[in-house]
Amino acid sequence: MFKKILIANRGEIAVRIIRACREMGIKTVAVYSEIDKDALHVQMADEAVCIGPARAKDSYLNMENIISATVLTKAEAIHPGFGFLSENSKFAKLCEDCNITFIGPSPESIDMMGDKAKAREIMIKANVPVVPGSEGKIKNLEEAIEIARKIGFPVMVKAAAGGGGRGIRIVRDEEELKKAFDMAKNEAKNAFGDDSMYIEKFIENPKHIEFQILADSYGNIVHLGERDCSMQRRNQKIIEEAPSVVLDEKLRRRMGEVAVKAAKAVNYKNAGTIEFLLDRHGNFYFIEMNARIQVEHPITEMITGIDLIKEQIKIAAGEKLNIKQDDVMLKGHAIECRINAEDVQNGFRPSPGRIDFLHFPGGLGIRIDSAIYQGYSIPPTYDSMIAKLIAHGRDRNEAIERMKRALEEFVIEGIKTNIDLHYELLNQREFIEGIYDTGYLARFLHLK
Amino acid sequence: MFKKILIANRGEIAVRIIRACREMGIKTVAVYSEIDKDALHVQMADEAVCIGPARAKDSYLNMENIISATVLTKAEAIHPGFGFLSENSKFAKLCEDCNITFIGPSPESIDMMGDKAKAREIMIKANVPVVPGSEGKIKNLEEAIEIARKIGFPVMVKAAAGGGGRGIRIVRDEEELKKAFDMAKNEAKNAFGDDSMYIEKFIENPKHIEFQILADSYGNIVHLGERDCSMQRRNQKIIEEAPSVVLDEKLRRRMGEVAVKAAKAVNYKNAGTIEFLLDRHGNFYFIEMNARIQVEHPITEMITGIDLIKEQIKIAAGEKLNIKQDDVMLKGHAIECRINAEDVQNGFRPSPGRIDFLHFPGGLGIRIDSAIYQGYSIPPTYDSMIAKLIAHGRDRNEAIERMKRALEEFVIEGIKTNIDLHYELLNQREFIEGIYDTGYLARFLHLK
Repeated sequence: MFKKILIANRGEIAVRIIRACREMGIKTVAVYSEIDKDALHVQMADEAVCIGPARAKDSYLNMENIISATVLTKAEAIHPGFGFLSENSKFAKLCEDCNITFIGPSPESIDMMGDKAKAREIMIKANVPVVPGSEGKIKNLEEAIEIARKIGFPVMVKAAAGGGGRGIRIVRDEEELKKAFDMAKNEAKNAFGDDSMYIEKFIENPKHIEFQILADSYGNIVHLGERDCSMQRRNQKIIEEAPSVVLDEKLRRRMGEVAVKAAKAVNYKNAGTIEFLLDRHGNFYFIEMNARIQVEHPITEMITGIDLIKEQIKIAAGEKLNIKQDDVMLKGHAIECRINAEDVQNGFRPSPGRIDFLHFPGGLGIRIDSAIYQGYSIPPTYDSMIAKLIAHGRDRNEAIERMKRALEEFVIEGIKTNIDLHYELLNQREFIEGIYDTGYLARFLHLK
Repeated sequence: MFKKILIANRGEIAVRIIRACREMGIKTVAVYSEIDKDALHVQMADEAVCIGPARAKDSYLNMENIISATVLTKAEAIHPGFGFLSENSKFAKLCEDCNITFIGPSPESIDMMGDKAKAREIMIKANVPVVPGSEGKIKNLEEAIEIARKIGFPVMVKAAAGGGGRGIRIVRDEEELKKAFDMAKNEAKNAFGDDSMYIEKFIENPKHIEFQILADSYGNIVHLGERDCSMQRRNQKIIEEAPSVVLDEKLRRRMGEVAVKAAKAVNYKNAGTIEFLLDRHGNFYFIEMNARIQVEHPITEMITGIDLIKEQIKIAAGEKLNIKQDDVMLKGHAIECRINAEDVQNGFRPSPGRIDFLHFPGGLGIRIDSAIYQGYSIPPTYDSMIAKLIAHGRDRNEAIERMKRALEEFVIEGIKTNIDLHYELLNQREFIEGIYDTGYLARFLHLK
C-alpha cells in the first residue's frame, strides 16, 4: 500500500480523500493556491505545498507544479478528485512517465471516453444501446439532414469535444437544423479547438440514470447500483438519489449488466460512472462515461456501505477487488443535496464571502461532506459548491423527511445559499413521487 | 399518531427526540430551566416553556410544572429521554392520570425493574440466569454470612434501592463482610431512604453486555443485538460498541432469547435494555433492566438501520411493531465515544464554560448527536456529556480507524474535554483486541 498520497484538488473532495487516507494509515499531501492558504484541506493534510496563484490554470491545473510537489514530498500516488485534472489523459500519462501512480483509469481509457464520438462507436461495437444517431462524426450538413430524417426529429447537434451540456443544440425540424449546423460547428471550433460534430435523437423528458462501477487490474468488475441525477439546472446536478424510483429489480439488473459491459469495452480500471438516459418506456441509452470519482458518490456509499475512495486507492495500489456482484446489497435510500454559495433570487449568482456563523445538522442518517468552517472566507475563484448534505433512511420517505429536517437545522450566516430552494424542491409533488425528469427544474424555476 | 409531543429533557437527547418528531411530522414542545434559555433544544422545538430555576429538582424533575406545560401546550404525550424522570414510576402514573401518554413502559414495569431485589426474584422465576446470591432481600448479617459461604467469596453487598454503582461493596472474606454489612445498610438508609440489602457473587473482570429490546402493546417483542459497554469509569460508560467481539452467533442468539424472556417477565412495553455480566467462560448473568432509551442507543441504530426514538413513539401511540426478529440484520460495526466537558488531568473535574470555537468531524460513517454550538456556554449544573461521536464501518477495524480520524478532526476551544483520552484508549492493545473488561479503564488510568 502507498505510504503517502498527494491530493491534486481542493474543497470538500480534498477533505474527503484525506479522511479516507487517514483511515487507511496513509500520509497525505495537500496542494493549494495562494488564495486557499486557510482552506480546511490544507489544515487537515499532513503536509501542504503551495502550487501557484488563485487562477486554476496557474495552480490546480498546473501539471508541472503538481508533479514537482509530488516529487518534492516523495508522495507515491496522486488522487485527482473530480474536475481539474481528473480526466486529463495528458496528466495521467505524465504521472506514468514520472513513476507516480495516478489514482484513476489509464490515459488510454480516459482518451477513449473523453471523445464522445469515439466512445459512441466503441459502445455500438460492444452492443451497448446508444441514442440513435450518426455513427461517428458527420462530414457535412447533407449527411446531417439524411441522418435526422432517418432517426426522426427532434435531434441534437453535439460537439464531439463538448461536455457538461456545452456545445449542444436541439433542433425540431429541417429548417432549424440547416440554421444550427454551421453555427454550432464554428462555436465548437472556437470553444474546444475541434469542430467535429455528431447528431443524436433527442430523448424528450428523460431520466438521468447513472451506474457506479468498480474495476480492478485483474478483470474483476462490479456495479454498485444506480443514482438518479435528473434534478439538474443547466446540466448541473443539484439533488441526487439512490436508488431510483423508476427502476425495478429487473431493469436495474439489465442496466447494471450493460454498464459493466460498457466499462469492459474500454478496458476500464478504477471507479467510474456510466451515464444513461432512460425514457418513459424503460428504454435506456448510454450517453457517456465519467472516468473519475463523482460529486454524488456518497449516496452510493450510504446504500452499499462501501467506501469508494478507499476502493479507488486499493485498486490503484494493485489490490484485487474483494467485492463480488452478488455481495452488493442496496440498503435503504439516500439523497444528496448540493449546498451552493449562490443567490438563487438573482439568477444563481455566486455568493462568496465570509461565513459569520455556521451550524451543521447532525443525528441519525445525516452525513456532511464539506470544507467550510465558521470564520472561513469562500473565495470567488472556484466552484460554488460548499457542502454536500446527505440523508440516508430505511426507505425513500424517511430519507426525504430526514433531509427536510436537516435542511431546517442547517444555519449559514454571511453568505447566500440554495438551502431554501432544496427545501422547496423536496416538497414538490414531482419530487415526492420521484417522477421528475432532467427538464423538471428548469420548468419549476420558470414558473416560480 | 400524536400531533404534538413534549420533551421532558435537555441537551443532546432532547435534540435527538426533536429530530425524530420532525421527521414524523409531529410538533414538539421543549421545556427548559432558566439557565437553559439559550440551549439548542429550545431553539429547535416548535414551542418552548420555562419550567423553573436551574437546579434539576426545580425544573427537569419538577413533575407538576412539566405536567402543566403539557396541558398548557396541548401536547398529547411526553418523551422523558434518559435520566431525570425517565424511570420515575410516580411520574409515569401521573401522566396516565392526566390522560397524557408517557412514552415508555407502564408504571408497574418501571416499579418491577426499579427495585433490584424484586427484579431479581422475577428473573429467577422466569428462568433468566442471575448472579448467584440471596433470593430476595436478606434479613441480617447471619443470613448474609450463610449465603456468602454457599456461593463463595468474593461477594457484593448491594442496596436494593441503589443503582449506577452507588450502594455497592465488594468483600473478599467473612471478616470484611462483618465489617461492611451494617455500614452499607446505614449508608443505604441515608442515601435512598431504604436499607434493604442483598448479596451477590462478585464476577471478576466481566464484560458488560446489554441487549436492546423493542416491545409493543400486542405482545410482539424483538431484540436488536447487543452493545459492549465495558469501557467504564466509576460505572459510567465512556465508549460503547456494537456488536461485541466476544459474542459469536450462537451466544448472541442465546443471550438475545434470554433478554426477550426477561422483558416478557415484566410485561415490558416500549424500548428497554437488559444488562448482563458475561464472564470469560461464556456464562452470563442478568444484572438489571433499564426501562428507558439509553445514551448509547445510536450504535444499535447504526448497525440495524432502525430509528429507536421513532419506534418508541410509534409503540406509545399504539402501533404494532413492524419488525420481526428474523428481519433484524446487524450490518457492520459501530462505536460511540461520549465527549465530556471535563478535565481528565484533574480528576475528571467538570469543565463548563463558553465554546469559543467548534468544528465537528464529518464524512462517511460519522454521526454526531450534540446540543452544543459555537458561542454556547455549557452550564455547570448538569451532566458533563456534550456530544456523542459515533463511527460506523463495514467492520470493527474500519470503525476504529474512522473514529480515530474523527477524534483528530474534532476541535473544541474554550473548555477541556476527554477527546485525547478517547484517542489514547482507541490505540491500546486491549481495546484493539476487544478484550477490555469493566475494570480495564480504572487499571489504565491508575497506571498512567
